[in-house]
This record gives sequence, C-alpha cells and structure tokens, in this order.
Amino acid sequence: MILTVTLNTALDITYRVRSLRPHASHRVSEVTERPGGKGVNVARVLAALGHEVTVTGFTGGATGRVVQELLASVPDVTDALVPITGTTRRTIAVADDLTGDTTQLNEPGPTITPTEWSSFQEAYEDLLASASAVALCGSLPPGVPVGAYAGLVRTARSAGIPVLLDTSGEPLRRGVAARPDIIKPNTEELAELTGSHDPLRATQDARRRGARAVVASLGPKGLLAVSPEGRWRTAPPTLVRGNPTGAGDSAVAGLISALVEHLPWPDRLTRAVALSAATVSAPVAGEFDRRVYQELLGRVTVTSEASAA
Amino acid sequence: MILTVTLNTALDITYRVRSLRPHASHRVSEVTERPGGKGVNVARVLAALGHEVTVTGFTGGATGRVVQELLASVPDVTDALVPITGTTRRTIAVADDLTGDTTQLNEPGPTITPTEWSSFQEAYEDLLASASAVALCGSLPPGVPVGAYAGLVRTARSAGIPVLLDTSGEPLRRGVAARPDIIKPNTEELAELTGSHDPLRATQDARRRGARAVVASLGPKGLLAVSPEGRWRTAPPTLVRGNPTGAGDSAVAGLISALVEHLPWPDRLTRAVALSAATVSAPVAGEFDRRVYQELLGRVTVTSEASAA
Repeated sequence: MILTVTLNTALDITYRVRSLRPHASHRVSEVTERPGGKGVNVARVLAALGHEVTVTGFTGGATGRVVQELLASVPDVTDALVPITGTTRRTIAVADDLTGDTTQLNEPGPTITPTEWSSFQEAYEDLLASASAVALCGSLPPGVPVGAYAGLVRTARSAGIPVLLDTSGEPLRRGVAARPDIIKPNTEELAELTGSHDPLRATQDARRRGARAVVASLGPKGLLAVSPEGRWRTAPPTLVRGNPTGAGDSAVAGLISALVEHLPWPDRLTRAVALSAATVSAPVAGEFDRRVYQELLGRVTVTSEASAA
Repeated sequence: MILTVTLNTALDITYRVRSLRPHASHRVSEVTERPGGKGVNVARVLAALGHEVTVTGFTGGATGRVVQELLASVPDVTDALVPITGTTRRTIAVADDLTGDTTQLNEPGPTITPTEWSSFQEAYEDLLASASAVALCGSLPPGVPVGAYAGLVRTARSAGIPVLLDTSGEPLRRGVAARPDIIKPNTEELAELTGSHDPLRATQDARRRGARAVVASLGPKGLLAVSPEGRWRTAPPTLVRGNPTGAGDSAVAGLISALVEHLPWPDRLTRAVALSAATVSAPVAGEFDRRVYQELLGRVTVTSEASAA
C-alpha cells in the first residue's frame, strides 16, 4: 500500500450561499462534508486510481469521529489515524452562488502533546513495514516539532521506502535536509526555501539542499522537474478553467502512484499534470474529472531540457 | 420544572477572525461552541436564575451528540431531546475583531419524519406531567407541520400548564389561535401577524386573535405588555450597548420564571427587561451579565397605561 501522512487532518465543510455579505445573516442552501487535509486528499485520488492507500495522522473529538466515519465510506482507503485528546479542526469554504468565488475559514486545530507525537511516530514506523511509498503532506499542527518531517523522512529512508514531501516554510527547509526522494513545492514555497524567484535556479538549489528530485508546480504553466535522471517541463495542452483547490494534491497522487508503478519520469509528470488539470475542471472541489483525465493523458507533452541537473 | 421546546436545535459556533473579507482565506483565532436554538438559550438563562429546566426538541448525528455533550455540562438543565436520523444543524457566527460586527451562516437543518414528529409529541405530553410551565421557542424545522405549535399549545392547555409561545410567521399565526397564555413577538413579527405597524394596535389585535397576554418586544425601547390584568410599558433606564443576540430569549426566560414564581405583571416585566439588557451588555453573545442584571432590577421603571385591554 501507499501511506499518506496528514498531521493536520480536517473536516472540510462547504457551504453554498447566494452571496456572502459581511455582517449579514445567511441561509446556507447546501452543506457538504469531506475528510480533508492534504494527505487525505492525496489518498482519495490514489484510491480512485486503483491503489490501496492507508492514511495516518491525528484524529480527535467529535469532528475527528466524523472524519473517520466519512473515511470509512471511501473504498480502498484504510484509516490508521492516531487518536488524540484534542479535537480535529474544521475548514469551512463558503461558496458564493452569484460570483462562483469561495471564502475560506480555517480553524487552528488541536495542539498535539509530546506523548501523542511519540505514539504517532511509533504508528508511522509500524505502517512503513507494509508501505511501498509514503507521502508527507501539509502543515504541522501546534505542538509537533518543526523538525517533524525531517525525522519522518529519515525513518522512511532507513526503511528503504521512497518518500515524497509536500509542505512549506521551516518544516520544508528542515525536511529537505533529510534527503526526501521528491519534493513538490509551488513557486512561492520554492522561493521561500531558496530565496530565488527563478523556478529553474530555485529548483536546482532545492536539490543542492538535499531533495533527490524537485517537481516545481508552476500553477497553470504545469510542472518543472529536476532529478538525477534528467530535467523536464510539462503543461496541460490547453488552459483549464475551474477551481484549483486540490490540484496540487492530485499532482502528488500522480507522482507517487507513478513512482510505485516504476514509470519513468516523463510518464510520472504526464500523470501528475493530467490529474491536476482534471481536478481544476471538476465541478466538486478536490475531485478529479475522470474523462478529462483520460483525455489529457494522451495530449500532455513533456519536454526534456538540455542538461540533467 | 420549566419545560422549554426547541424544535430547531442547533450547535452555535462562534469564530473570531481579524476581518472577514469575501473570497479571502481566514485563519480562525478562536472557536467557541454552545448548544443553541431559542429554547435552549431560554433554558440556560432559567438555570442561571436557579430554576430546574428540561429541554426538549430534536437531536441527531454528530452535531446532535456535541449539543448533548455540551448540555450535560450545564447545571440544572435536563436533556430530554428526542433522537432523529437526520443531523442537527450548525450556525456559525463569524465575529470580526476589527469592526466588532458578526456575519451569520445558518445551516438549514434536518428534515423531521412523520414518525419522529409523533415520537416528539408523545415525549412532550409525558414531560408536561411534571412541568410548571412551558416555553415553545423558535422556527419549525422542515417536515414539522406548520400547525405544530397550535397543537403543542392545545396539549399544554389541556394539561393546565401555562404556555408561552415565541415564534414568527405562519406557525405564530396558527399558534396564537390555539390561545397561548403569553406570546412575545418583536415589532416585525407583530406587524406580520396583524398587518399593523402600530405596536399598541397590533398588540391589542394579537390578543383578539387568541393570545391571553402579548408582550411586544420593542428592541432598545423595552417591552409593551397587554394582558387581562392591565397594560404596561417598560424600558431599561439607560440605552444599553452591546450584542443583542439572545436578548429576546432572556426576556422569555424572565417572563416565564416570574410567571411560575407567581409574580405580578410589573415584576415579570422588570425581570424580562433587566435580563434582556444584561444580555445585550454581556461580553459573550447570549450570556447575561449578572451584575448588570441585579443593578438594573432596581432601576427599571414600569408604567401602567390608562386602560386594561
């Protein structure tokens, strides 16, 4: 199975309203709830691609129970969340019928105790024993040490499991130094890590800092990948319109699924770009449109660049 | 005990944000959760006044469980909510640090099945056996017949239990015809019921429609009460600034507690106005400031008007 780690699990709630006006009262016309957090989104896409996935991270309180109930109804996803005494956070996306725009309200989430963090590390090590790859995704909740991902990367590498890291800020900086197999920063995260706003230069610098391969997400422009095996650029054939929520998580699912299928880099990138674009064009945030995905798979072009890094 | 009925129970969530801007992403700095719905608010104030209270209405799903957990921690309030298969609604108040204003998002709530409505009516009749008074509060959830309150008023009257009705629209119109002991409309509700925007005329008309006594809430201007025993106006001595959320529910608690204590009308109104103003001035929405309450009790003036209605 593929293991995805979401330390900042969430219940993602979407409210439909006619038009959000500050300081007014709104009747919500539709409520949808999904288990969320980046690694959970990655897991859902992996499962839809036919992979067995296990999700771990933290769960607690009434909201954690709802997350687990919803996870139980997703086929091929195994729940290995670690219980905590705090309460899992909610995120609320208020979708505006008139403008199509979304307003986001994110709860801070529970503080993890040192004992809970230790329990998680033990659970993680046990889960790695049956994992073919691991994706470490998203921000760290309060209480988890800033070097957390660095430690989890090292544990995976010691176990010989390929590890993808998708986070930002100081947790990314420390995590990169622990030599993950792939990082997938966007241009902002890459600039914050390296100080450079030039994607190619920043990507190469991120490799020097320890990442074996860097797949930089350039938004609608697609991906730039630099690895020991070569350097590639890839983009969807047409500009895809829609909701970018979850597009990055779908790219991670594309990369890690193709990795465990031993596909070469160009095929990994094709899959990541097609899944990402199919997620942007899907009507429900974070879902991907399977027809668009299949159609794009045959139309994404990958360009190999002059020098391998 | 005093029985309060909240057919549209809710989990009231308050989010603090720096400043709510449509289509932006917000970090919530503080999350508070309270069991809500008008009858639940009334119950909390009654309990704070030293009365034994039982709350009934509906509860379901994960949110219903949270409401019940929170109710269990309120002293002197007994939970007699009736289980349903749907999920209790949430309301979210987004409180803006910069402006002090609040944006409200209200979920529609579950649809009640005919079987669930029957179960409720049986539970209600059983609970009346040990009630000294009953308050029927708030809107009706989908699935509950529009004449619901009329039926509940009649059941209470048959049992000889004084009944206060605090609702609006068609449920109020039908409920009034069933001859409740007290209704407590605000000026808008009263105008909708009677077609008149003149508070005195509308109040007298509401009595002709069936209400034994009408206590019209005139907002910051206080209360106008018309009953077989006389007619009174009362207002807080000074304009109270703050959050009016829950002020009406506190007034209901004041009226019904004073009724079961057999206080005369002027004392009932003094208590309702003092509680209401103490709720507006409290820092937490829906709570009342006990010091302000005690202080106002001695300063509220009640004016008896010329003719009994």
